[in-house]
Amino acid sequence: MNFGFTGERFSAVYRLTGEEAEARAQAQDICLEQTVELPAALVTQAYIREHVLGRVEEFTSLAENVYQARISFAVEIVAGELTQLLNVVFGNISLKPGIRLERIDLPPTMLEQFPGPRFGRAGLRERLKIPERPLLCTALKPMGLLARDLAALAYQFARGGIDIIKDDHGLSQQHTAEFGERVERCVEAVARANQETGGNCIYAPNITAPSGYEYGSAMHAKRVGAGAVLVSPGIAGLSLMQNLAANPDFDLPILSHPSFQGSFVVSRDSGISHFCLFGQLNRLAGADAAIFPNFGGRFSFSRDDCRAIVEGCSQAMQNIAPIFPAPAGGMSLERVPEMREMYGRDVILLIGAGLRSHSPDLVANCIYFRELAEKI
Amino acid sequence: MNFGFTGERFSAVYRLTGEEAEARAQAQDICLEQTVELPAALVTQAYIREHVLGRVEEFTSLAENVYQARISFAVEIVAGELTQLLNVVFGNISLKPGIRLERIDLPPTMLEQFPGPRFGRAGLRERLKIPERPLLCTALKPMGLLARDLAALAYQFARGGIDIIKDDHGLSQQHTAEFGERVERCVEAVARANQETGGNCIYAPNITAPSGYEYGSAMHAKRVGAGAVLVSPGIAGLSLMQNLAANPDFDLPILSHPSFQGSFVVSRDSGISHFCLFGQLNRLAGADAAIFPNFGGRFSFSRDDCRAIVEGCSQAMQNIAPIFPAPAGGMSLERVPEMREMYGRDVILLIGAGLRSHSPDLVANCIYFRELAEKI
Repeated sequence: MNFGFTGERFSAVYRLTGEEAEARAQAQDICLEQTVELPAALVTQAYIREHVLGRVEEFTSLAENVYQARISFAVEIVAGELTQLLNVVFGNISLKPGIRLERIDLPPTMLEQFPGPRFGRAGLRERLKIPERPLLCTALKPMGLLARDLAALAYQFARGGIDIIKDDHGLSQQHTAEFGERVERCVEAVARANQETGGNCIYAPNITAPSGYEYGSAMHAKRVGAGAVLVSPGIAGLSLMQNLAANPDFDLPILSHPSFQGSFVVSRDSGISHFCLFGQLNRLAGADAAIFPNFGGRFSFSRDDCRAIVEGCSQAMQNIAPIFPAPAGGMSLERVPEMREMYGRDVILLIGAGLRSHSPDLVANCIYFRELAEKI
Repeated sequence: MNFGFTGERFSAVYRLTGEEAEARAQAQDICLEQTVELPAALVTQAYIREHVLGRVEEFTSLAENVYQARISFAVEIVAGELTQLLNVVFGNISLKPGIRLERIDLPPTMLEQFPGPRFGRAGLRERLKIPERPLLCTALKPMGLLARDLAALAYQFARGGIDIIKDDHGLSQQHTAEFGERVERCVEAVARANQETGGNCIYAPNITAPSGYEYGSAMHAKRVGAGAVLVSPGIAGLSLMQNLAANPDFDLPILSHPSFQGSFVVSRDSGISHFCLFGQLNRLAGADAAIFPNFGGRFSFSRDDCRAIVEGCSQAMQNIAPIFPAPAGGMSLERVPEMREMYGRDVILLIGAGLRSHSPDLVANCIYFRELAEKI
């Protein structure tokens, strides 16, 4: 009796730190810890031993005291749920040092259960009517500005030719610029600029909010004419983002912000890889763009970390569309040529403060940004 | 003009690693990064400089190259939202190594915006009619068992005198024991045992589920007679847990499970302290008990880490009730005396596999567990 288990499996790859015997034991431990949570001797049912237990499929040495294990799990234990996928691939073992989740590999039947990004790169380009060049993005800030002042900024950015104007991720329901008023004013400002320029700039308000409010905020944003939304899945949950991306009534692009997710990637030996967290998981959860701190800015991501994110955003995943990497975090206009060289054309260049400090004329700064981005 | 800022502030304490000049710069950086996200020179509005910017209130040396900074923020920038509180105290700086959030200190006006645990220690004791002794808890597993087999286990545990029988956190919607059937069968089994013993055992199903389903699962659990629920806030979000705890239609105790939260605590130099994550944040988000891996089990928490969690679960927080620490993770019956000595009586002793392996007679094992727990 197989009790409904088909034998189909998916796998996760882990980087394990320690001596070989220790790493091998760690791999075996993952097979139990992430499934039955019992010592093997207490698992008496043959079908559970055969199907439910994780299985070490490969174990290789990467370097001295660094190993890699591919572990497979029955497709059925995830039950089609993103939440349970996170639980199986990294739930309890997140609490154990020396285990880093490098990547997940899902078979077509599982990928089909995750619709993924509604727009992806192609859809977002089509919506913005920008077939080829990098997309230009900036942020409305600082927190504390009145809604009318944020809208005035949005107007200038849109006049200058920015494609996506997003809320700073710290803008929520502060009394100075409450969500409803902020969205209405900024949408109006951007629409006015578009009318004047013939452009297609969109405004993406931050809909990260207490549980139960995000969906209403997202629908409000759509109703009044926002062109996308910003979500911080580290705070609102990857599953919330997925729910929004899959909702037929909500058809706006989603920008994913890395707030509160940093602890997964600050250690090389533990946590989740940049590739998987910002690439694979964002895509499974339906983001159309992954914002992350670019190398050489005010954060500590390396060039290789950023390359891995691009790879995670791009790699073929059957029905799951590729999404835009959106490097940010202390970028200046001077660095645009270097970013173009690194990221090519399929990138959202997100410059916040750097667009303000270049000269006092924000419209001129935006025009210059666009020129730099369009140069090959 | 203060633009509605009252001058009232809350604070967060950070542990900073590096040389003194570097740590001081790091503290100043937090003041900007977590609020305006602009260089100070670009913040031209006097009221934003005065109110919105974070402020270093204390800076002390803890050890060589280890410093501590207390940074205050305007109460208004959190807008009463748990999600925005997380964003302000640790959002972007989670991405910067060498910064660990140690604790948050909220003034009474902010604490009043967070109702906290509905039951807390006193309420849970009252509900279970256990005025003094430690509470006994175990888990239904392994994943893959049929609902009827999980219910049969629940019956034996309840007959043996366990107080709280929770789902393993890996039980979700697997076809072998779908949520609806599992909850109904386990509730029935526990009720039958209670009738026979005169006991007050409760069953706590796992309601962690894809966004949009958790609330329905929680209400279903309540409707059919579950006595509590299990939530993994690392997956479902702390805010989801808070929403449930604050919902007047849902009045069951909540057990918080640490799945997927480990990356916040695996590094000593980054992330969030055990005290804050498992104590303070669980309480603000309305958990009635915090499950965590006990020292000396199959995880790597130290005795001091566990003490810090107890402190976070207990410390006075005005209207926010103290909650139960629930040490778990590879505990055996043999270790109950040591756990009693460490945790005293205000603890939930959670033993899973150890309760199965002691002898083949599960009821006898539970009775023995109870005897050990009641000894002073």
